[in-house]
Amino acid sequence: MTTTRVVALSGGVGGAKLALGLTDAVPGDNLLIVANTGDDFSHLGFAISPDIDSVVYALAGLNDQQRGWGRKDETWTFMSALGDLGGETWFNLGDGDLAMHVRRSEALRDGKSLSAVTAEIANVLGISARILPMSDDRVATMVETASGPLAFQHYFVREQCAPAVTGFRFDGIEDARPHPALMTALADPALEAVIITPSNPFVSIDPILALSGVRDTIAACTAPVVAVSPIVGGAAIKGPAAKMFRELGFAASALGVARHYAGLIDGFIFDTVDAEAESEIRALGMATLVTDTVMQTLEDRQRLAGEALALADGLRQGG
Amino acid sequence: MTTTRVVALSGGVGGAKLALGLTDAVPGDNLLIVANTGDDFSHLGFAISPDIDSVVYALAGLNDQQRGWGRKDETWTFMSALGDLGGETWFNLGDGDLAMHVRRSEALRDGKSLSAVTAEIANVLGISARILPMSDDRVATMVETASGPLAFQHYFVREQCAPAVTGFRFDGIEDARPHPALMTALADPALEAVIITPSNPFVSIDPILALSGVRDTIAACTAPVVAVSPIVGGAAIKGPAAKMFRELGFAASALGVARHYAGLIDGFIFDTVDAEAESEIRALGMATLVTDTVMQTLEDRQRLAGEALALADGLRQGG
Repeated sequence: MTTTRVVALSGGVGGAKLALGLTDAVPGDNLLIVANTGDDFSHLGFAISPDIDSVVYALAGLNDQQRGWGRKDETWTFMSALGDLGGETWFNLGDGDLAMHVRRSEALRDGKSLSAVTAEIANVLGISARILPMSDDRVATMVETASGPLAFQHYFVREQCAPAVTGFRFDGIEDARPHPALMTALADPALEAVIITPSNPFVSIDPILALSGVRDTIAACTAPVVAVSPIVGGAAIKGPAAKMFRELGFAASALGVARHYAGLIDGFIFDTVDAEAESEIRALGMATLVTDTVMQTLEDRQRLAGEALALADGLRQGG
Repeated sequence: MTTTRVVALSGGVGGAKLALGLTDAVPGDNLLIVANTGDDFSHLGFAISPDIDSVVYALAGLNDQQRGWGRKDETWTFMSALGDLGGETWFNLGDGDLAMHVRRSEALRDGKSLSAVTAEIANVLGISARILPMSDDRVATMVETASGPLAFQHYFVREQCAPAVTGFRFDGIEDARPHPALMTALADPALEAVIITPSNPFVSIDPILALSGVRDTIAACTAPVVAVSPIVGGAAIKGPAAKMFRELGFAASALGVARHYAGLIDGFIFDTVDAEAESEIRALGMATLVTDTVMQTLEDRQRLAGEALALADGLRQGG
């Protein structure tokens, strides 16, 4: 087992972009990417892990960049036929994507752990970074809304994030054990950085942090903790993060994100369009880096990852 | 419930062709098509019923006529992606076909019977004939070969029917109950005909006949029993039937098929290329009809079905 030099906490597409960038600077399994599994759900008999898959597809070069989610060169014959048979079609599953769910579901039925089958899949796809589910135990993010709680995918996909959010609940979080490999990496004095990718703080990063001991261990960790804001100019690059900040009564801004992570992180990276918030963010007790955070090209991903690692380096050496 | 006027026993593609022809002459659910389920198996977590699906696809007009099996307008992205993930690819599943397996597997997990979900699927696809699995209980055809027993799909698909056959075993047959609707139809004096379609006698029709009471009830049934030979000019139209007859030491011919069904059937239909066997077949104690039995067009299917029903009619009225 190689030493983990960098731990990245990731949700789906946004996190996967930075994770891909990190693979450029951190070779092989020196990089440990911890994926949120609070979005995981069982549907049509499949065990679906959307955030793990987003990371796997991105790192394997299989992700669709135009659509922004799922696999490239995808076909949709299955869903169309399922609709013709009167099946449920609100959660769109591409034909190629199904292979992932079938493969994973089979392995879980055979008694393998989610982390074991994730490692197998990453390996067969030639991914050398280590992709780890936050836990092998089941955690289910529930979105509390004015009209009652919704399972995450019901909120996110079926309801298209329309209901106003009043809070979140992570069912099973008390009993779920964070993956031991995460705890081992965080306790290792050789760890150089913990990167919180620009995924949704509430539903992608907080479930990881809410696992028993994780938040405290990260806060106490000798390696610097650097977060990248998923909010740019008051809007989320993708998904409902800005809407959630507003509905919960927080500022939907880089400052709002920085406040959310205050006490946990040592460094915060946010976009140049939000530069005027820098002094307020610094006042929260964190180092800052103002840069272009919108990752459109592979070069954007690699540059931003490099900047995050450099900020951590600076904090570790001088900080 | 409408009265069943005609019962057809069917395997996969060949049987489904004649079954489709029968729907022309026998309206709505006056036609009961009983599908073999000895080929059914569980694969990649799916409950797969190849013969039911062949009949459903044929009657819904969804079958691929060029390839000869599966759905038309099919895509194959899933299988390709599953191969890339290191999954099992010996049993090819089209993307649209997957919808059938997902829908059925889900219903079975929910505690529905195979016959109930089959009826639901047929109904949503606008099929008015009644398609019935031979049993809601599990029966698994095992092919005995010189090198040991093989599960049917392993013999048929994975091994491409290469091993020499020494016999067959239908696991679970002692405990499986024939579907009650089949027994009710066979006991009804209003029944006009039992048609044994030109499916493989050993692995498509015999499993149905081997269910407790079915062979005896059909033999004793007041309605004439008419079989159509799947062997034409010494060869099977599709599949390993002729090879099996030979390997088991029987004549791979219309006569061989007639001998196989002797004592059970009242009438036998075989192809004009085999006309010289007519007197030997009649000597087995069955009426005969020599006609074109190769069904290429829809008209072929309808004509042959009409001839089978006319033969039964003649036997019923004149004896």
